[in-house]
Amino acid sequence: MRFARIEHNDNPTYGIVSGDAGAEEIALITGDLFDGWDRSHNPAADPARLTGERLALADANLLVPVVPTTFYAAGLNYTDHVLEHARVNGREPNIPAKPDIGYRANNALIAHGQSIVKPSDSTEVFQYEGEIVAVIGKRIKHVSEAEALDCVFGYTIGNDVSERTWQNQDRTFWRSKNTDTFKPMGPWIETGIVTGADLDALETTVRLNGREVIRFPTNNMLFGIALYISTMSRYLTLQPGDVIWMGTEGHAENMVPGDVCEIEIDGIGMLRNAVVAE
Amino acid sequence: MRFARIEHNDNPTYGIVSGDAGAEEIALITGDLFDGWDRSHNPAADPARLTGERLALADANLLVPVVPTTFYAAGLNYTDHVLEHARVNGREPNIPAKPDIGYRANNALIAHGQSIVKPSDSTEVFQYEGEIVAVIGKRIKHVSEAEALDCVFGYTIGNDVSERTWQNQDRTFWRSKNTDTFKPMGPWIETGIVTGADLDALETTVRLNGREVIRFPTNNMLFGIALYISTMSRYLTLQPGDVIWMGTEGHAENMVPGDVCEIEIDGIGMLRNAVVAE
Repeated sequence: MRFARIEHNDNPTYGIVSGDAGAEEIALITGDLFDGWDRSHNPAADPARLTGERLALADANLLVPVVPTTFYAAGLNYTDHVLEHARVNGREPNIPAKPDIGYRANNALIAHGQSIVKPSDSTEVFQYEGEIVAVIGKRIKHVSEAEALDCVFGYTIGNDVSERTWQNQDRTFWRSKNTDTFKPMGPWIETGIVTGADLDALETTVRLNGREVIRFPTNNMLFGIALYISTMSRYLTLQPGDVIWMGTEGHAENMVPGDVCEIEIDGIGMLRNAVVAE
Repeated sequence: MRFARIEHNDNPTYGIVSGDAGAEEIALITGDLFDGWDRSHNPAADPARLTGERLALADANLLVPVVPTTFYAAGLNYTDHVLEHARVNGREPNIPAKPDIGYRANNALIAHGQSIVKPSDSTEVFQYEGEIVAVIGKRIKHVSEAEALDCVFGYTIGNDVSERTWQNQDRTFWRSKNTDTFKPMGPWIETGIVTGADLDALETTVRLNGREVIRFPTNNMLFGIALYISTMSRYLTLQPGDVIWMGTEGHAENMVPGDVCEIEIDGIGMLRNAVVAE
């Protein structure tokens, strides 16, 4: 099942997406998406929650599917990406030895279809990173790796847009990864991916102006989603709606204003954002 | 004027704090603290917003004064702290050349009076950091340094609790600075500090079990609050209620379970938290 978040009568409202690609409809529902959720029970899917209002996806003003309390990001979590990152920077590759989670910032979030704004002082090394995003479903602490995937409400897609010059120059990732519009996320949350085998079946494809620039097995991570969640929950309370961006694979190309970047994960959907100049 | 946030009838509610130290009362107000705020107009201070309910501060269940959309932290922002940090780690001091903002995480926030939980596997290098915290009052982008302080709703106090071994071991600050309870913030937001001269008059004092361990001029920063806000707002949209923790000065001592840490900034208030073992 796919849950989208849209602006409706000036309020953020969730809806259930159905229909064929290109002709989807959204059936609006009442209330909070996560309230009372458990792997075995999803109140948001209750037909009694339907308001009866339906609209065409094409007519909807899509919002980011959730604004998290804390915005987590795994960073370096695929081998070829770590090697490529080191090569470009002329450094020895430093493969992470354990799942140390990082952070991104809510100010940078934009929805599917909104524009990535390339700052006027950005250098040409301005790149996409296609990532799967786990959306936490309930308040958790101290969960085992075996229990962890059952705490995930569903999955969406993120584009961890990065200005590499700033990434190397600054003491933190504040400009390089958290400038406004640098964190497209969406288009919706897909709840049909449940097990590790479901994750293993996924493939991530990134296209720039329709041309495929990378394709990789989504779950081919250094540290998997379950291990990240379990490790994090030893110290951190995860909240409903928290998001964990799981990192990307390989080498990225530069984007320039006018480009359109599409990140597709089969079984979840496709996140499309154009690049515009500031 | 001092605005506290308390739990009242199971809801977070703001109130205005008045009265002598140790005998304060809170007069509850309706609605959102930041809605319609501008330096020249503070709707939350409108007497029409008072509900008529008053309670003793001592009887109130204080909450963190705000849960930010994005939780910013300056990190290294006082010269002696940078030098001390380098000395302890046997590194050359690396004085930041520009105000690169960093991040902390909402899961770690606790209120005045709540306990800092020292994890069972924490090492002994478990320390306080007393900081002034700027609370943003309105949505801003592209503000000049001259305009920046007029975008601050008020100030509160933060304790950037840090586990130094993890700070050195991990790829990010996730455990070292963002473990649950590692970010005490409060007790309230003080709106009476308006100008740079007001900030210059402040002094931060940290006490461990009543013993003063450090005292420093609060505003003696490498990069001031106005410069940070102006620089950040070139790239980031700041939201009402966003917080910016401004860093700390000097050397910190270790804390052990049973200790009580007090951070006082004259003119703002005093943030007190005990340390307990996990």
